[in-house]
Amino acid sequence: MPVIDPAEIAEQYLKELKDSVSALNQELHVAGFIASEDKPSIAYANATKRVFDDAGFHYHLRQVQRLELEKEILAANENPDVHGIFVYFPVFANQEDDYLRNLVHYTKDIEAGSLYWTRKLTANDRLANGEDSNKKALIPCTPLAIVKILDDIGEYGSGERPINDKTVTIFNRSEVIGRPLAVMMSNDGARIYSFDENGPLMFRDGQPEETSVTRSEALAQSNIVITGVPDKSFCITANEVNEDTVCVNFSSEKNFEEAVAQKVRVFVPRVGPMTVAMCMRNTIRLFRNFHQ
Amino acid sequence: MPVIDPAEIAEQYLKELKDSVSALNQELHVAGFIASEDKPSIAYANATKRVFDDAGFHYHLRQVQRLELEKEILAANENPDVHGIFVYFPVFANQEDDYLRNLVHYTKDIEAGSLYWTRKLTANDRLANGEDSNKKALIPCTPLAIVKILDDIGEYGSGERPINDKTVTIFNRSEVIGRPLAVMMSNDGARIYSFDENGPLMFRDGQPEETSVTRSEALAQSNIVITGVPDKSFCITANEVNEDTVCVNFSSEKNFEEAVAQKVRVFVPRVGPMTVAMCMRNTIRLFRNFHQ
Repeated sequence: MPVIDPAEIAEQYLKELKDSVSALNQELHVAGFIASEDKPSIAYANATKRVFDDAGFHYHLRQVQRLELEKEILAANENPDVHGIFVYFPVFANQEDDYLRNLVHYTKDIEAGSLYWTRKLTANDRLANGEDSNKKALIPCTPLAIVKILDDIGEYGSGERPINDKTVTIFNRSEVIGRPLAVMMSNDGARIYSFDENGPLMFRDGQPEETSVTRSEALAQSNIVITGVPDKSFCITANEVNEDTVCVNFSSEKNFEEAVAQKVRVFVPRVGPMTVAMCMRNTIRLFRNFHQ
Repeated sequence: MPVIDPAEIAEQYLKELKDSVSALNQELHVAGFIASEDKPSIAYANATKRVFDDAGFHYHLRQVQRLELEKEILAANENPDVHGIFVYFPVFANQEDDYLRNLVHYTKDIEAGSLYWTRKLTANDRLANGEDSNKKALIPCTPLAIVKILDDIGEYGSGERPINDKTVTIFNRSEVIGRPLAVMMSNDGARIYSFDENGPLMFRDGQPEETSVTRSEALAQSNIVITGVPDKSFCITANEVNEDTVCVNFSSEKNFEEAVAQKVRVFVPRVGPMTVAMCMRNTIRLFRNFHQ
């Protein structure tokens, strides 16, 4: 029944991040690139800039032509005065966006969406470069944001397998969010049902398994339901979920019908503000790992 | 009017490749992975194995579960007795296929579809590892196959800018075929109109430019039209193309209506056999570059 505003959870992280930045005693510069003329997208970019700047980062937001973006990313990779790079997607809204995402050098990839980091996560390799145990690997910012929200509201347990007894259904198996999240939460002990338009997979202990579970079976068994379907017509109804369920939506669309918020134990309608906070956390980690 | 069978063009390459393999005086081993139960796909895999084996390669075709493929690719990367890896896509038919494609180590990526090679092509970097001028970079096998077919039928000219005076329209801007092909052919002098479901781009000298050209304008100006649209409903009609045009289809669907073959100067209904030959050529190049 309580609806959680992740902005409130992000607040406490932002305070800590501000302290961390000021303790570094060094300017942290982030290059943000937006290749869109769309007003809401630009407003969102300006808002993230403000949050970064408020926390003590130097966020350099630039509007560029989409055909200039490749060159700009490569220049930012080379520039020693840039410690982190943030790209606002979609740009081309096709495979070229993955190409661009992977052009960001891993030492500056504060979203941790490039193959270097998603591979580490899939392989359960917790170290940033395989040698130094002081240098921890980065985790893609949205999966990390979701886990931190669940943790903050007391739904993530503790110890080696904090969510050992939970069943989780995730609607989204993208390479940057849904699949890393399934791997991560299953490594933390949960049984994960992962759906995309091609059907379900199950994840246990970080490994995928084939399953013939249906949507309604998965939802009926789930303690946690997480959605990220960029499709207006996708909707989980209140009669599909249990009263004791925790529901989290990270899509820009409303993936749950209104009545779900009234019925379930906890409803988190968006994740965005925590994603931005986790990007900042990643920026600091990258700086300590590679730029200090 | 003449319809070209690329299998006949491939024949001469296969003879040369057979000689090259035998001159190496060393066994070349390729691991092929198919993660499908679909009979036509398995038949296609068996056919490619036969062509590789006939040319003197040792092609080890294995049928694996899709969830085992990641592990198998990583093992083949590590195995010094494997010189090349070929994966039959689609596997998951989503972004995870790109993840798998990029797991293949670039020194064994005979399709040259991983970011290591497509980045080289985009950057017009012709060297395999940036130092040794004897080690040439690989080119993704389907774009290479298309250029070699055009060359063989006398449509590619010669010299520094062999297709300097040509206009080419390409329907497909995928990262593995359409975009590399546009970059390559524009580096060879042509003006390229590149269409995908998001609209057109123009390429000149390897660089993309915005354009507002329409499909019919582009087709009316084109000397060469190349299609690769995996959609049954996509169809170029005979009245859209000129009589003097060269038309090439690399999609598994028929992207041109039947009457096109009757009207245009040259029609190439498929590319497949040359793609396989170019994979072999890449296998030899990788062996000379990295495994000898």
